[in-house]
Amino acid sequence: MQIRTIKIRGTGQYLPKQKVTAQQLAEKLGIEQDWIEKKTGVLVRHFVEDETASEMGAYAAQDALKAAGLSFADIDCLVCTSAVPEQAIPCTASLIHKHLGGENSGVPAFDINSTCLSFITGLDLVSYAIAGDRYSNVLIVATEVGTGINWKDKESCTLFGDGAAAVVVSKSEAMDSSKIICSRMETYSKGVRLSECQGAGNRYHPSEFAQNPEYFLFKMDGKAIYRLASEIMPGFIKRLLEPDGLCIADLQMVIPHQASLMAVRLIGKQLGIPPERLMTIAQHCGNTVAASIPMGLHQAILQGRIHRGDRVMLLGTSAGFSVGAIVLEY
Amino acid sequence: MQIRTIKIRGTGQYLPKQKVTAQQLAEKLGIEQDWIEKKTGVLVRHFVEDETASEMGAYAAQDALKAAGLSFADIDCLVCTSAVPEQAIPCTASLIHKHLGGENSGVPAFDINSTCLSFITGLDLVSYAIAGDRYSNVLIVATEVGTGINWKDKESCTLFGDGAAAVVVSKSEAMDSSKIICSRMETYSKGVRLSECQGAGNRYHPSEFAQNPEYFLFKMDGKAIYRLASEIMPGFIKRLLEPDGLCIADLQMVIPHQASLMAVRLIGKQLGIPPERLMTIAQHCGNTVAASIPMGLHQAILQGRIHRGDRVMLLGTSAGFSVGAIVLEY
Repeated sequence: MQIRTIKIRGTGQYLPKQKVTAQQLAEKLGIEQDWIEKKTGVLVRHFVEDETASEMGAYAAQDALKAAGLSFADIDCLVCTSAVPEQAIPCTASLIHKHLGGENSGVPAFDINSTCLSFITGLDLVSYAIAGDRYSNVLIVATEVGTGINWKDKESCTLFGDGAAAVVVSKSEAMDSSKIICSRMETYSKGVRLSECQGAGNRYHPSEFAQNPEYFLFKMDGKAIYRLASEIMPGFIKRLLEPDGLCIADLQMVIPHQASLMAVRLIGKQLGIPPERLMTIAQHCGNTVAASIPMGLHQAILQGRIHRGDRVMLLGTSAGFSVGAIVLEY
Repeated sequence: MQIRTIKIRGTGQYLPKQKVTAQQLAEKLGIEQDWIEKKTGVLVRHFVEDETASEMGAYAAQDALKAAGLSFADIDCLVCTSAVPEQAIPCTASLIHKHLGGENSGVPAFDINSTCLSFITGLDLVSYAIAGDRYSNVLIVATEVGTGINWKDKESCTLFGDGAAAVVVSKSEAMDSSKIICSRMETYSKGVRLSECQGAGNRYHPSEFAQNPEYFLFKMDGKAIYRLASEIMPGFIKRLLEPDGLCIADLQMVIPHQASLMAVRLIGKQLGIPPERLMTIAQHCGNTVAASIPMGLHQAILQGRIHRGDRVMLLGTSAGFSVGAIVLEY
């Protein structure tokens, strides 16, 4: 039993002002609008104009603080859970910290990264620190700008959108039933090369860009990822839910990583989740990488599709290759 | 009280075969050997030849597993706590996972980043997850390759060395007195620009390298960092130690981040730590960034300068600007 009496106290999001429709993208790429809509399910995604990732993160954080009825002065830890940082140094949380007016606050700021699963990994770890009375009110922010997109690879470049989402997490009060019921993460590094961007870290410094520009672009083998995910997912869900005597039918809502609309539908089909209990947001914002799961959570709350007391599963896969999930009572 | 009954079960390190002396570096840079030795205190540092960061991390991990009397099959969580990743995607922990034979293991792998403080932040968070019975034996690895060094800035380029260190952490057994006594982290983002590398994330994609190569190099204002650290440190140490009724004299060993030998000596002087209780390794390996603190811990154990039952403080500053520390009973 891994119960942590933790409460999602508020959620927020920020989407850049610039909307790009499938039609606009099709024109830019010289491909069919139909192909994009059918293959990815993304009708509209947002792209940054002048917003930085940390600015978007700060806007989403302010939205989440407002929803929680708190201000940054109430926060005692700030965690950024994005897949790609804004700068090589320092961590993105420090940059968000500055935008939120934390200059002299001393509020600790750090990043947690498991690519698209970063938010799940972050919430999971932070919940133990809250349960252990280390922190009281933690702000978790995921913010993504897709700068490494390969515009020649129509399979991947039509999926992504920019955006940020944030969550304020606190210890539940005595009358609350809110809690994390269970969580699990599994990494199978036999799939470590199935989706990657090899450059920009210390393997290939940006000075090598001119010689090998392809090292600095995201590439993925969608079919192989799908096969590996399909192989692992059923057993993973069993290992996650069975120790607590739960099954898929006990969940009021599943919020999956929005890799693509098709990926979301396939997960729903494979795990037997009825469409009304499966949150899909990719149509209107694309795959916002690590921001996708907290953004799905935010929109589900905003749309009244989740109520206090509901059992909710956050679920995703990521480069690595990893699978991760949290089951919580909202 | 934040006590977690956690034990450092084994430590390890890896230093690249290639040693570079102050004399060799002075010749390369066209500066005085004396200047390097006096200013940084670094007599020798190691630079990778063909080793990648994840390979070095795996070697250090194997060394730590051996010291702990365990194999990778006993590990149920792998955390990488480096300042700079090997690739933009996926997280470095996944790459280390593969080198350790974790392909089909399902052992979760993720990164935690607070630049030079990453190991402290990682150990701190992981200890709550172990205390909460989520994980039993966690491998924490920090591995650094200095690819973004600005060779024209003699103040910073003479400081760094490559290397990796690893630690296996487990729950203490009933007869063990090993524990984390307290820990603390504070971020003051007014100092967020004092040390940074702006490029390589989503702010400046590597495709901008040709136009603005300086964006992709590390820069720091050493004097301003020293002033800010001096301003924060005494109060920080008080806020860390006083709630547990501790003071500096109660610590058998302090293992600071090895920013430079001078920085280590200044911290010692400022906090009143006698030289024999202050671990310094920068002379022989330079500033290995986030690997520096676990490497200092490893060498202190190896040299018999720490014994079971000793009170040890891990302490550092990082880009952000952050200060962090853990006090543990080894």
